[in-house]
Amino acid sequence: MSGNTIGVLFRVTTWGESHGPATGAVIDGCPPRIGLSAADIQGELDRRRPGVLPSASPRREADRVEILSGVFEGKTTGTPISLMIRNSDAEGETYEGLRDLFRPGHGDITYQAKYGIRDHRGGGRASGRETAGRVAAGAVARRIIGLAGITVLAWTAELGGIAARNLSPAAAETSPLLCPDPEAEEKMRERLQEARAAGDTLGGIVEIVVRGCPAGLGEPVFGKMDAGLAGALMGIGTVKGVEIGAGFAAARMTGNACNDPIRPEGFRTNHAGGILAGITSGAEIVLRVACKPIPSITRPQETVDVHGNPAIVTVGGRHDVSVIPRIIPVCEAMVCIVLADHLLRQRAIAS
Amino acid sequence: MSGNTIGVLFRVTTWGESHGPATGAVIDGCPPRIGLSAADIQGELDRRRPGVLPSASPRREADRVEILSGVFEGKTTGTPISLMIRNSDAEGETYEGLRDLFRPGHGDITYQAKYGIRDHRGGGRASGRETAGRVAAGAVARRIIGLAGITVLAWTAELGGIAARNLSPAAAETSPLLCPDPEAEEKMRERLQEARAAGDTLGGIVEIVVRGCPAGLGEPVFGKMDAGLAGALMGIGTVKGVEIGAGFAAARMTGNACNDPIRPEGFRTNHAGGILAGITSGAEIVLRVACKPIPSITRPQETVDVHGNPAIVTVGGRHDVSVIPRIIPVCEAMVCIVLADHLLRQRAIAS
Amino acid sequence: MSGNTIGVLFRVTTWGESHGPATGAVIDGCPPRIGLSAADIQGELDRRRPGVLPSASPRREADRVEILSGVFEGKTTGTPISLMIRNSDAEGETYEGLRDLFRPGHGDITYQAKYGIRDHRGGGRASGRETAGRVAAGAVARRIIGLAGITVLAWTAELGGIAARNLSPAAAETSPLLCPDPEAEEKMRERLQEARAAGDTLGGIVEIVVRGCPAGLGEPVFGKMDAGLAGALMGIGTVKGVEIGAGFAAARMTGNACNDPIRPEGFRTNHAGGILAGITSGAEIVLRVACKPIPSITRPQETVDVHGNPAIVTVGGRHDVSVIPRIIPVCEAMVCIVLADHLLRQRAIAS
Amino acid sequence: MSGNTIGVLFRVTTWGESHGPATGAVIDGCPPRIGLSAADIQGELDRRRPGVLPSASPRREADRVEILSGVFEGKTTGTPISLMIRNSDAEGETYEGLRDLFRPGHGDITYQAKYGIRDHRGGGRASGRETAGRVAAGAVARRIIGLAGITVLAWTAELGGIAARNLSPAAAETSPLLCPDPEAEEKMRERLQEARAAGDTLGGIVEIVVRGCPAGLGEPVFGKMDAGLAGALMGIGTVKGVEIGAGFAAARMTGNACNDPIRPEGFRTNHAGGILAGITSGAEIVLRVACKPIPSITRPQETVDVHGNPAIVTVGGRHDVSVIPRIIPVCEAMVCIVLADHLLRQRAIAS
Repeated sequence: MSGNTIGVLFRVTTWGESHGPATGAVIDGCPPRIGLSAADIQGELDRRRPGVLPSASPRREADRVEILSGVFEGKTTGTPISLMIRNSDAEGETYEGLRDLFRPGHGDITYQAKYGIRDHRGGGRASGRETAGRVAAGAVARRIIGLAGITVLAWTAELGGIAARNLSPAAAETSPLLCPDPEAEEKMRERLQEARAAGDTLGGIVEIVVRGCPAGLGEPVFGKMDAGLAGALMGIGTVKGVEIGAGFAAARMTGNACNDPIRPEGFRTNHAGGILAGITSGAEIVLRVACKPIPSITRPQETVDVHGNPAIVTVGGRHDVSVIPRIIPVCEAMVCIVLADHLLRQRAIAS
Repeated sequence: MSGNTIGVLFRVTTWGESHGPATGAVIDGCPPRIGLSAADIQGELDRRRPGVLPSASPRREADRVEILSGVFEGKTTGTPISLMIRNSDAEGETYEGLRDLFRPGHGDITYQAKYGIRDHRGGGRASGRETAGRVAAGAVARRIIGLAGITVLAWTAELGGIAARNLSPAAAETSPLLCPDPEAEEKMRERLQEARAAGDTLGGIVEIVVRGCPAGLGEPVFGKMDAGLAGALMGIGTVKGVEIGAGFAAARMTGNACNDPIRPEGFRTNHAGGILAGITSGAEIVLRVACKPIPSITRPQETVDVHGNPAIVTVGGRHDVSVIPRIIPVCEAMVCIVLADHLLRQRAIAS
Repeated sequence: MSGNTIGVLFRVTTWGESHGPATGAVIDGCPPRIGLSAADIQGELDRRRPGVLPSASPRREADRVEILSGVFEGKTTGTPISLMIRNSDAEGETYEGLRDLFRPGHGDITYQAKYGIRDHRGGGRASGRETAGRVAAGAVARRIIGLAGITVLAWTAELGGIAARNLSPAAAETSPLLCPDPEAEEKMRERLQEARAAGDTLGGIVEIVVRGCPAGLGEPVFGKMDAGLAGALMGIGTVKGVEIGAGFAAARMTGNACNDPIRPEGFRTNHAGGILAGITSGAEIVLRVACKPIPSITRPQETVDVHGNPAIVTVGGRHDVSVIPRIIPVCEAMVCIVLADHLLRQRAIAS
Repeated sequence: MSGNTIGVLFRVTTWGESHGPATGAVIDGCPPRIGLSAADIQGELDRRRPGVLPSASPRREADRVEILSGVFEGKTTGTPISLMIRNSDAEGETYEGLRDLFRPGHGDITYQAKYGIRDHRGGGRASGRETAGRVAAGAVARRIIGLAGITVLAWTAELGGIAARNLSPAAAETSPLLCPDPEAEEKMRERLQEARAAGDTLGGIVEIVVRGCPAGLGEPVFGKMDAGLAGALMGIGTVKGVEIGAGFAAARMTGNACNDPIRPEGFRTNHAGGILAGITSGAEIVLRVACKPIPSITRPQETVDVHGNPAIVTVGGRHDVSVIPRIIPVCEAMVCIVLADHLLRQRAIAS
């Protein structure tokens, strides 16, 4: 994971700024002869589009992905797959007032500190828009792991402090908030409206489950599966915490309670979350990520300008009330990418 | 982070099994002309030694590190630093009964699934002993970041469900459990003794604080500082969760409460934990990791053998009651290693 | 150098097939605040365009580069620079007869063996057209090393067996064949016309000289400067040999003759070619690469089809008589890319 | 190929200075369940030992390799294989006079320029002794490719200007100079004695042939097989040129003569040297490398000291007259390492 590339064998590089001409991804190392069309990728992109969900901003991007290379007559060729999404609705001028101001909670101040320059429009590279490239690449990764019988599904486990209790993943797929508990979802929607009315934003927790993953994926001791997943998920802009299996609750368990007894038909419990010593065990992989509230709130905030002088910033632009549920396909994409990479790595030594 | 190597410019490769001839690390990319002696490294290793703490196993290793290359007349030369620690007290025969059995909660079953072979003695490569190489390499990393004014300090934030309340980091340094709250520590010791008497083990939470880190370290979008730290920490065998700044609590905050207002003299709060958009902000970096209870409990456990038949395993050997506090220098080492790598990476583009 | 990416800190990934929608490159790790415009890159691309030189094919591509990211208000921002060149003049149907036939000397048969599928149109990924992305990226690299005072210049040292004798690099820059010896160039042009009339093609030798390179670039022992340059140059499709300094002639010298005596003002000779033990010495870096004749000859050739049956192939399409001089900007680009990467790597440890 | 590590999946890191305590290699990514013993590795090391060949120095090292990890009960486990060779006969004090002087043709001056410090004893890291770790790792690589039916054999093609004409590879294996032409070898031995008498040294050319390599290994466009081989071979201290197949002679051929016609039973000629478009074709891979004469000559040489003042250096120590034939196992090792890495990489996408 160096710079804008992730992966050892299945390598994804994303590029693009929020208000530049386009954003995209290059995927190198995709196995050949896998059926792939723009529509396969478009389906994933549509899930993270703004404007279709109750928590969403009104910004509308066609988000049409174009496959520029690596696919021939509907099949991958093994060469790099270049994916591009034009930024069709980029009102850069809206951000002119932010050229010299740092928005609290955003990367404005750290990009400036690092590079001494930044594209201030819409957060530039640090914008959530960058994740379009991740989702596009994740769609390709999902095809690879799908051929091995692996599925990745995520849902809203908590939003604005309201937790989903009755997990019905099937319900999540058709729910506007991708929430598996219709009753909780109703309360989440109310919380979202309250927050929007208050010019405020909400955080939440996403749960991700991987099914059908064979045992044996992951490389000790630094290339562990859980290390890779945690790094990939923590690298999503909004994420402040990652846990696997029992997670933080494991810190309060005893060994006797936490160990998962092993039976011929499988593990009796799954506190490990499908990973032991960094290698998949064949059990479900279960992850939870904590998402902070979107920092773009409408009320005036205390800040400094690029010269270090105190200032008040009022963030305009079009923003969501919560990254949930739009962040969910991004979480899934990152998990698919890490799994695809490890699947290929394991094939190299298993044959 | 591929296989047993971590880092882009400051690269650490560890090697060695629990009961093989030795364990060690090779550090490539260390800048030249840094004063370094075996004693510098030994001091860190001694902090993770078994047998010196109330939670510890009676296994005693001299753990003498030998510098085999890369240091000339007391200074690093820029060439690879090879560090070796002989395994002097390795009673491999103790583990003969575990040759064909998988211990619950351990990597036995996943290593077997991945490789079709494993060194069963003491967990082989998956043993906590592997972390000696990490700690040795971390001592070198600590020298590098220390020259830049960065310090890394970790302590016991929670053990067996008992949380430290009054954080006095200075107290932690001299405390046997590296706990900053003497009152809480007293209760932790009681919990440890209860657990030991019950043949059981305990988990806990380690808090890590980085001070003096300049703004600008970390590379978007996959090589982010928080992604790197989370991956490195989740790659420690015992860790099931990682959070940064407000962490999981951020999921329940509103944007207005979570954003850290910026003032000319610095951030007013630090819910971000010192990292914004994956780049350090100059504020303290604050991390917490959840450690599961050690899976080596003394009571018989349900399991299967290598042929998949049901079996009962009773784990002998010498084991700690909790990875805390021995895991603390390992956590610090991983953070030092990630910081050193990013510090060098930033120098490449900053000059 | 894995797959389609080269570099550790200055990383270039190219993508695109000869007759797909576009070809391009993503550059990750470019330092910020460097002035860069499409025109800077276009100038380099124009040097490798078909149709402008006596040895060239009649295919004409506008070869207009578009900067899609990483540059803001005329300066690099430190984020990935995505460059795209549309394939405007791609007559894929010309190649229909080659769908099932392997052209001798081309990668058709090996791509099929590796991937079990290939884009047969114009060589697909193995086409010389792929080098457009390299040249575009090389233009960015040239800016970086240029700021450090390093220049890279290559010329035609030999073509069709005719060697340039009087090296006047200045003459090379304005010469149609980029040949520093006008007399030799006249003979080369005759040889080219003879070969074209015979439906045959010619090989040659390119010499590359790097001036102004500071001492100290290159990383022992596998990341040596000469190793990096040789790998990068041998990775150009047409190249069958690389030598540095005295090169193959050094194999026939004695140590006394080959050693370059050192004087306070510099090396008395330069048989080393500017590199000692893989690290630059401050002297000129001198490289020569052997280019094979273009395999696309017009006369019928013995081959097999994709089923392994014997066949005769007649290569149509539009082809050059020699890769020289169009390969010269590609050689320069690869050298610029390797130098830029090592320059950044050295900065990381030198400060 | 960054710093002291080579490979993507089969990764070799070497460490150690000529006169430090030891030298060695860590191999990460070796597939599990491959029979491996210290004797397997020792056999290769013995081939590059000093003191056993007519061109050799009198320095005698036991060169006993110790396997410190990664092998259990005679088989690889998939975990890192750490190999160590103690430096038993290191007369560091011999080099005291060279502490402040740069030997022409050596890396003394460039290491000092790069790092501002160096271990001057015997060339430190730049010593030929470093290659012991490469050869040890190459022995492991040879096991992996051997299981796939691939063999690597190199011999002396030229020494001191005398070329082997009648290539009988079988003869080379038992020849003291690893020369396949007994008649030429006789003359080479005479040249070696003349050079030794004159206090001078000789260069030569090594030819390497890979047999049994399947088609399809190598990754376009920067991870090509020929790029990887050229980089690995040029990274050997003594090498100044690398060519593949027809090599530099290809530059003087026409396309009609150079193309290898394809027949159902294979290629009619092999000017390509077994690689087309960077991917192996199934034909023999043929490489030649140019080795410069050893720079350690006995006569006084013009140089400067570390302060830049003119000086005369007389190189003492114990030195060979030619790197041939001791460099031959090193060439083979590098080729084995690159092939093993590509073999694993291909398995990842081929299954």
